[in-house]
Amino acid sequence: MTRKTEGPGAAPRTRGRGRRPIDEVQADVLRATSELIVAEGTADLTFDRVAKAAGVSKTTLYKLWPSPRALALEAYFHVVSEPLAFDHNTDLRTDLLQQLHSFAQVMQSPVGRSYLELVGASQTDHELSLAIRARYSSERRELAYRRLAEAQDRGEIREHVDVKVLVDQLWGAVYHRLLVPDEPVTHAFIEALVANLLDGVGPAR
Amino acid sequence: MTRKTEGPGAAPRTRGRGRRPIDEVQADVLRATSELIVAEGTADLTFDRVAKAAGVSKTTLYKLWPSPRALALEAYFHVVSEPLAFDHNTDLRTDLLQQLHSFAQVMQSPVGRSYLELVGASQTDHELSLAIRARYSSERRELAYRRLAEAQDRGEIREHVDVKVLVDQLWGAVYHRLLVPDEPVTHAFIEALVANLLDGVGPAR
Repeated sequence: MTRKTEGPGAAPRTRGRGRRPIDEVQADVLRATSELIVAEGTADLTFDRVAKAAGVSKTTLYKLWPSPRALALEAYFHVVSEPLAFDHNTDLRTDLLQQLHSFAQVMQSPVGRSYLELVGASQTDHELSLAIRARYSSERRELAYRRLAEAQDRGEIREHVDVKVLVDQLWGAVYHRLLVPDEPVTHAFIEALVANLLDGVGPAR
Repeated sequence: MTRKTEGPGAAPRTRGRGRRPIDEVQADVLRATSELIVAEGTADLTFDRVAKAAGVSKTTLYKLWPSPRALALEAYFHVVSEPLAFDHNTDLRTDLLQQLHSFAQVMQSPVGRSYLELVGASQTDHELSLAIRARYSSERRELAYRRLAEAQDRGEIREHVDVKVLVDQLWGAVYHRLLVPDEPVTHAFIEALVANLLDGVGPAR
């Protein structure tokens, strides 16, 4: 395997036979890819461009990721981790509103738009559909389940409720307005999503 | 304009200068297109194939629809009108469950799958996105609003609730599980969607 230079910002090679540990390389690649997709979206992302930006060989990229789209999804996960983190302030309503407002903002930015395009393409590309689930959506769902289960343990959600369904009625509802934009994703929409679910829309009991 | 034969099943030409009224032609084309998309989906639908199946000229099709996809969407609307009709039995919960179970069934059939593929393609095709809204989704939303507003008038939904948001938390939640299939659309999922919204998931008040 030929090895290209790792770029001026790379860590000094001190371990093993002079090669950087794989997790360092991986982190560099994800960082470089994140910068690329924030600036330009995922449409034109190729291993060639990532290799140049991260200062690694294309061979390395092919070893670590099955496709540029799989890499894009993983980088996307890293980009949104911080804005989409859940607060843990006991009060579920406050934490959900904070997170959903950030989510709506991310999804309406170019990087969020790129994700919607990947979801779109995945309707006729089974490999991509699997990559989305393996490298993004199932882990995002897991993070939401954890926050909701914590609220359920505290009695903020009734105990027989399947919290998995709430993910589709909150984040899924936002995706629906973004993918088929008959109605806008507004601040009032987000507030209504949370109020409708926590309080119910039926007649007062 | 040249005129081709209208096929053996066509209505007799009795009006005007021997031409069938445009609404009859339109109905024939929609019927023929519906049969094509139920049998084969929308992926390979061309004006050529529709013209042959409906016994009309391609010129007529071009006059009436901007693209095969726009025609497919309108035919799709006709195909699903009956299975997706709303009952009006006073009891909102019963009617919603009936409709949502039918909806889940349609969406998991080949014709529903075709619609998801169109929604997917519309993420990078602005014309198609506009066609989906103009010829399918906004009218489907309108039908749901009407049924929900009726329930609201009867006191089955609290009066300050924006029923538009409920569309995203019911049908939108189903679309979410179909477009990013981390979790299946089951009977229990549909029941939970309705119960969560009508009753709320927060602690009993």
